[in-house]
Amino acid sequence: MQVIRSVNTMSEIIQKYHLQHKQIGFVATMGFLHEGHLQLMKEAKKENAIVVASIFVNPLQFGPNEDFEKYPRDEQSDTLLAEKTGVDVLFIPTVKEMYPHAMLIHMSIRERVNVLCGHSRPGHFDGVLTVLTKLFHIIRPTKVYFGLKDAQQVAVVDALIQDLNFPMELVGLPTVREKDGLAKSSRNVNLKEHERREAVWIYKGLLAGQQLLLKGEGNPALIIKEVTQTVEKHISGKIDYIELLSYPALKPVSTINQQVILAAAVYFDEARLIDNLILHPNGKIINRYN
Amino acid sequence: MQVIRSVNTMSEIIQKYHLQHKQIGFVATMGFLHEGHLQLMKEAKKENAIVVASIFVNPLQFGPNEDFEKYPRDEQSDTLLAEKTGVDVLFIPTVKEMYPHAMLIHMSIRERVNVLCGHSRPGHFDGVLTVLTKLFHIIRPTKVYFGLKDAQQVAVVDALIQDLNFPMELVGLPTVREKDGLAKSSRNVNLKEHERREAVWIYKGLLAGQQLLLKGEGNPALIIKEVTQTVEKHISGKIDYIELLSYPALKPVSTINQQVILAAAVYFDEARLIDNLILHPNGKIINRYN
Repeated sequence: MQVIRSVNTMSEIIQKYHLQHKQIGFVATMGFLHEGHLQLMKEAKKENAIVVASIFVNPLQFGPNEDFEKYPRDEQSDTLLAEKTGVDVLFIPTVKEMYPHAMLIHMSIRERVNVLCGHSRPGHFDGVLTVLTKLFHIIRPTKVYFGLKDAQQVAVVDALIQDLNFPMELVGLPTVREKDGLAKSSRNVNLKEHERREAVWIYKGLLAGQQLLLKGEGNPALIIKEVTQTVEKHISGKIDYIELLSYPALKPVSTINQQVILAAAVYFDEARLIDNLILHPNGKIINRYN
Repeated sequence: MQVIRSVNTMSEIIQKYHLQHKQIGFVATMGFLHEGHLQLMKEAKKENAIVVASIFVNPLQFGPNEDFEKYPRDEQSDTLLAEKTGVDVLFIPTVKEMYPHAMLIHMSIRERVNVLCGHSRPGHFDGVLTVLTKLFHIIRPTKVYFGLKDAQQVAVVDALIQDLNFPMELVGLPTVREKDGLAKSSRNVNLKEHERREAVWIYKGLLAGQQLLLKGEGNPALIIKEVTQTVEKHISGKIDYIELLSYPALKPVSTINQQVILAAAVYFDEARLIDNLILHPNGKIINRYN
């Protein structure tokens, strides 16, 4: 595995792959890799000749009250994991390399962002759009892989690729879960013991909502109520949101006759956890986006 | 020459060229082609295996008071001219093809735009950025060609390509002029006879300013004064602006020790004409950008 830190060197390597007609799968990360990231890399490896992964903690997507400096980093462990998982090129640029001067061009998104986690992170997705556009131009991948755990991010990347005709395919892969069903997250280690036992009920609550849909219930309010009651019954933490929206448009629906997302976020003492299901209108879980 | 109207077909053709390792030169136009456009195509032909040109009157770059509908169009003549000039593929998408639904992603530029022609066209360059990003992704050119007559547009495209790491090279080519020196423009036909005789003094005024710089004058105010006096002496129209700015940053300079643009815009009765010189700090004219 090559570890590349310079944009120019990365571009040269990509140019070489293009001349060899090699399909490139790309996984963009902020590092501190866990099983979720590795699944993306494994799938990219299956479907492409070359896998490029990037590790870049993007200052542009952190708000003024979000701690860019304190974001967890472990380059040594990440490098070992990426290599073991079959990544061919690991791109780890510095902030200076990615943003050599103040940006003149600004990218923003007007929809799909004022719901779910977007409420509490204004401007976050603008920074995501910008860094992904830069990375997509440097890596020029055939397919890009994102986890459906961050389903809102997948919806935003979908808009980016569609609206601006990026010549690449978006793949959204299912959330990786612990044995009991809890969505894997680097934040799970911040749960107290009783919180960890309770946390699985976010997922179980979503499944209870799905059950209603499977039985033919098309009223979003009733499904949200079912999830809310299930979560509240078993969890001491505080619900941030439980929402049901069309997917990927992320608009409110009055009745479920299209693909939807059923999503929840819960505050525990020192961790805010999120989870979601993407559902066919017949209630079946959609595990791969595109 | 192939004439292509569908984004998908265009993408397929480009993919074929990429697999053949063919360098692609791209000229984006709004049609109603004149000698200025054809020069771009000729240069693109010299430097690339394939030349793609596009004709698309982009609604996004027209303000509410600018008449998108009345923009001159002549597809039949354009097609003949493009073919004669050596264009391999002429891309003429419809508005629906380029903007199948309302855009969710918004692009904007914060600098380089509140000077020169940007004053009078707020939001214009945001629309330019968006359509060019889309076209660049569809055509995936090796080199893109723009005329330095629209030097501000070249500066904006330069920012776009640099900031977002577009994998392509920007080429700015010199303004094409009538025999007497007047910059070629489709608007020249709207000049009255005496205005046409006067109009060359925009160019001559800029050259008078350049003379001062060649003689060692480094004070922008004195150079602007020289241009203003020359233009006012010979032209009955009204000066919109005469500006001297760093180029491509388009920032005011207190003394000329870097590449600059000396630019003028003049209102005649039924035409507003623009012209400019890009100048080395020693006063020599720079004819090719990049």
